Amino acid sequence: MEILKGNAIVGQSGGPTAAINATLSGVIRGALASDCIGTIYGAYNGVEGMLAGTYCDLTAFFADETKLTTLETTPAAALGSCRKKLPKLDGSDPTAEATYEKLFAFFKELDIRYFFYIGGNDSMDTVAKVSAYAKAHDYEIRVMGVPKTIDNDLVVTDHTPGFGSAAKYIATSMAEMLRDCAVYTVKAVTIVEIMGRDAGWLTASAALTRLNGMEPDLIYLPERAFDLEQFFVDVKAALDRHPNVVVAVSEGIRTADGTYVCELVSNSGTDAFGHKMLSGTGKALELAVKERIGCKVRSVEINILQRCAAHLGSLTDITESVSVGKAAVEAAASGLTGKMMTIERVSTDPYVSRPGCEDIDKIANMVKHVPDEFINEAGNGITDAGVAYLRPLTEGESYPAYHNGLPVFLSLK
Amino acid sequence: MEILKGNAIVGQSGGPTAAINATLSGVIRGALASDCIGTIYGAYNGVEGMLAGTYCDLTAFFADETKLTTLETTPAAALGSCRKKLPKLDGSDPTAEATYEKLFAFFKELDIRYFFYIGGNDSMDTVAKVSAYAKAHDYEIRVMGVPKTIDNDLVVTDHTPGFGSAAKYIATSMAEMLRDCAVYTVKAVTIVEIMGRDAGWLTASAALTRLNGMEPDLIYLPERAFDLEQFFVDVKAALDRHPNVVVAVSEGIRTADGTYVCELVSNSGTDAFGHKMLSGTGKALELAVKERIGCKVRSVEINILQRCAAHLGSLTDITESVSVGKAAVEAAASGLTGKMMTIERVSTDPYVSRPGCEDIDKIANMVKHVPDEFINEAGNGITDAGVAYLRPLTEGESYPAYHNGLPVFLSLK
Repeated sequence: MEILKGNAIVGQSGGPTAAINATLSGVIRGALASDCIGTIYGAYNGVEGMLAGTYCDLTAFFADETKLTTLETTPAAALGSCRKKLPKLDGSDPTAEATYEKLFAFFKELDIRYFFYIGGNDSMDTVAKVSAYAKAHDYEIRVMGVPKTIDNDLVVTDHTPGFGSAAKYIATSMAEMLRDCAVYTVKAVTIVEIMGRDAGWLTASAALTRLNGMEPDLIYLPERAFDLEQFFVDVKAALDRHPNVVVAVSEGIRTADGTYVCELVSNSGTDAFGHKMLSGTGKALELAVKERIGCKVRSVEINILQRCAAHLGSLTDITESVSVGKAAVEAAASGLTGKMMTIERVSTDPYVSRPGCEDIDKIANMVKHVPDEFINEAGNGITDAGVAYLRPLTEGESYPAYHNGLPVFLSLK
Repeated sequence: MEILKGNAIVGQSGGPTAAINATLSGVIRGALASDCIGTIYGAYNGVEGMLAGTYCDLTAFFADETKLTTLETTPAAALGSCRKKLPKLDGSDPTAEATYEKLFAFFKELDIRYFFYIGGNDSMDTVAKVSAYAKAHDYEIRVMGVPKTIDNDLVVTDHTPGFGSAAKYIATSMAEMLRDCAVYTVKAVTIVEIMGRDAGWLTASAALTRLNGMEPDLIYLPERAFDLEQFFVDVKAALDRHPNVVVAVSEGIRTADGTYVCELVSNSGTDAFGHKMLSGTGKALELAVKERIGCKVRSVEINILQRCAAHLGSLTDITESVSVGKAAVEAAASGLTGKMMTIERVSTDPYVSRPGCEDIDKIANMVKHVPDEFINEAGNGITDAGVAYLRPLTEGESYPAYHNGLPVFLSLK
């Protein structure tokens, strides 16, 4: 194993999660502990900051290590994020060469020999490209992707850092809404829309409430074609059982012909400004139930709250997110490059996991769906096997410190 | 002071809060400790249960007092709720006599001499009517209202039980959303709709984030007439200052002529089923910003999450909610009747409060608005005086116990 000495840079990319800063903390902890890494720099807004030369010295900032625990319970990317994809290296993009030259000039200037990128699918694409360019141009650098996404839709890893906290927040909020909806005796339907365009992992986590005694009557994921007529049958049957029906739906559910449910309703209306009224999936189903069943109905969209609720993180998730960040540094120091860190599930009960890693090329642009055995036959609920997979990921409570009644968050910008 | 011995009944009414069960626990604690009260019964679904004869024996259920702490962190009315108003006693309602006879027959049958009713404005109306009927018919009973509402819109009390927890949840979620919105460099507006039809207390609590370093750029309450043109000017000025603009609005904001902002947009659209598209206030403003400013814009409705989020209660609120329930029993045992319990603020810094009570007739059907000195001159923000009033109500964290990664809630039905 070859020892490589130099500085490191870390960036964050893609949508916010409650755990992305825990992973950043893990990377910083790993770098501070490593003999190979001199200074660890933080790029503002991912590769955008590396191209613009906007960054900070994290080694200096975190000389006081107590700040790291605050960072671990601070939601959303503390370094800022970006959606930028690096240009293709196949010669199809005339700006490519200039972009990579600028990026690598920045690396040379700061003697960057370690590159850590925390993000989702698109970010792993960046890791793959930086790795490939470095190899082709003989610039010695160890390039590691560290996954994060609330969507849990990355392949090769048992689950993604950030998912467990979002799942815990959704399940807890669902448990509370089930109580909220149960107080009246009048027949009513509540439709809760949960994030997930292509994969239903977050929506499935609403079924965790089974472990607490009350659960949604119906759960629909994008993994199964949605049938509006069958939905009415399902809802009516639930209303026959009890007055307060609660339904969880993924934002991305679509009918067999591929039409998003939200498009079923948003086609005809225009607002006072002449705009098409774009309603969400929950709202669309609310209107459909009102029309066809006629009972009291409302929809709730958990929206961005589910991806940034650091006030109730999963301790398992936050702990693993730190570990996987640290392990990324150790893996790079040991000689690995062009890899994405993973979490391997060693056992479910008792729950044991460990960090692993896989070639970055195996990951980019693939989606991990909820498997068939986690979805019931009717396609409107989650099996006990699904609940068993999800449960350990939400175990334990991660709370931030509070001051003046508000959580204390850390600012790096 | 006359000693009155007998049994007690307690009911819950109106919309859910995270603290209404803490008050129920206080009433039960008070009753268990009282020499005057034999058994305390819980009516299911408020007066509906008293009229239907559906109730439970709380003295027996809570023989194991440890259940009371679980009850205190269980959201929404554990006994169920109702929206039922008792008929008027002025002779205008021909069903009135039969209704009250049924109710008081129920009281006689169970030897109910203490009546505790936990709810909002409408519930205080029930308290006033039961009290008046008892007096007119010489049935000796002590009747006490114990307030709860997340809206904080009841007069004579400094604040209402349930408000502090909702305010803490809103402020915390806002602090997290401000982080979430700040990660990108692209200009974007996020509009957060918060509950409050007539009073802006909950929306004002979004300004508490000032104490944590980041706050919404603009806050609009129903206490001030909303001007759409001025709103565009305000948003544009905010976008000139920084790219990520966050706006908090009360659902009930309206223009000078009384038109609700949500009606400005929902007039023209119809959905695929021919229904009027009813959009919320946040959605209406989202569409307006898209039209007039053209930048990236989204709206978030916190919805029912804000009234049932027991996973993050204000410890001050939960503690006061228990105290005021207990104090209601003590006040009734001491001879008072026809009163609503209040919370008196003795001092703000350090924060000291104590339970009080006022004649029920002073309260019913009045709304307490956010005072002028809490709203800035431009009508788009909260003053430091407003923040100073709100802060102590959200101090301290109340957390439920967790099992299997989920909060443990208590069921009484």
